Amino acid sequence: MIPIVAFVGRPGVGKTTFLDALIPLLRAKGYRIGTVKHGIHGLHLDQAGKDSWRHAQAGAEVAIVSTPQALGVFRSLDREMGLEELMEGYLSDMDLVLAEGFKGKKIPKIEIYRKELEGNLLTDEQDNLMAVVSDTSLPARVPLFSLNDPQSLADYLEEKFLRKRVREEVQLSIDGQRVPLNPFVQDLFRSLLLAMVAPLKGIGPFSQLSLRLDASIQKKVASP
Amino acid sequence: MIPIVAFVGRPGVGKTTFLDALIPLLRAKGYRIGTVKHGIHGLHLDQAGKDSWRHAQAGAEVAIVSTPQALGVFRSLDREMGLEELMEGYLSDMDLVLAEGFKGKKIPKIEIYRKELEGNLLTDEQDNLMAVVSDTSLPARVPLFSLNDPQSLADYLEEKFLRKRVREEVQLSIDGQRVPLNPFVQDLFRSLLLAMVAPLKGIGPFSQLSLRLDASIQKKVASP
Repeated sequence: MIPIVAFVGRPGVGKTTFLDALIPLLRAKGYRIGTVKHGIHGLHLDQAGKDSWRHAQAGAEVAIVSTPQALGVFRSLDREMGLEELMEGYLSDMDLVLAEGFKGKKIPKIEIYRKELEGNLLTDEQDNLMAVVSDTSLPARVPLFSLNDPQSLADYLEEKFLRKRVREEVQLSIDGQRVPLNPFVQDLFRSLLLAMVAPLKGIGPFSQLSLRLDASIQKKVASP
Repeated sequence: MIPIVAFVGRPGVGKTTFLDALIPLLRAKGYRIGTVKHGIHGLHLDQAGKDSWRHAQAGAEVAIVSTPQALGVFRSLDREMGLEELMEGYLSDMDLVLAEGFKGKKIPKIEIYRKELEGNLLTDEQDNLMAVVSDTSLPARVPLFSLNDPQSLADYLEEKFLRKRVREEVQLSIDGQRVPLNPFVQDLFRSLLLAMVAPLKGIGPFSQLSLRLDASIQKKVASP
């Protein structure tokens, strides 16, 4: 699984500003960083006035703008996508995902706290709080980092999530949900996949293989 | 393969306006429509001022905003993604993809023509031109549709691409590139995949399975 950490804190505490400082430091270490933010009020499809948004509003389920520097994908939904689906579908090649919000999810959390907003911390160890970033000293049972020192947190995240990470070599998803595979099954599937594609023409050394089965398609059985 | 049609035409001819009229008609027929537009000048990341764009600029490779109604994904790129990669990565569950532009690609094309812009058609049958949409009569060797009658084109696209479509049941990708599989290999892979997951616990009837192998990961061989 790709590691994910949620940054939580009161509105206005400066989560986005802190992430803006943290992300380049993690990038500078050579890691691919993805971010996920939870929005409530929709994507304001009417504000951009770009063609892609117009398509999205005209009823296209997916509207893409592709440029040499960046890709924008807009997808209409009936229901909010789960964090797992997002990780699987859009973030599977990242080294670390930083989420903003998602306080209710059972994922590791870092709370950002500023003394001028007063009050208690929003989260504790029962919410998987792993660290606090603050401009003041706090009685926390987790490591405390300074708001002015994103580098220390970048080092800590690297130590916690990135150095020792062993990615799963074989990943199985059924209807978009990851199915955990034990090491024996991983090994078995790895050998089978390699054996399956080995006889195919034109396949040299590769770094990633994906095989998908659409079981919903009616199969026409030809008579022998 | 998911069918794709490119809408081409001179700048200002009304491609986006026509697509905005066409897409809801195809949606009303029950099809999932994706759109792809080629941008040259980047995604103007500085214009939106949203947090997700700020993250993208701070160096996040992928920045996602997730709401119950829509998903926005912004991805920084070193090079423009190929149409195949886009189809595979972001449009694989669509019924039909409508592209705007991509005149140079070897995909079916529909040219939009208005007499006030004069000149000849930009494309012909050698460019895989399959139809022309125009506000005037034209000597074309392909079907001609009226700019005022997107319904007729929607019916035509359904007839051409959607009714008879047999999706490939098993799809293999190596490093993001689709590898075509003949019917025998499709059948063989289908049986193997079903056999591989059958003994796993907790897998009931499903409609889609995906299996991925990261061959780039160093495998630690445990001694027996």
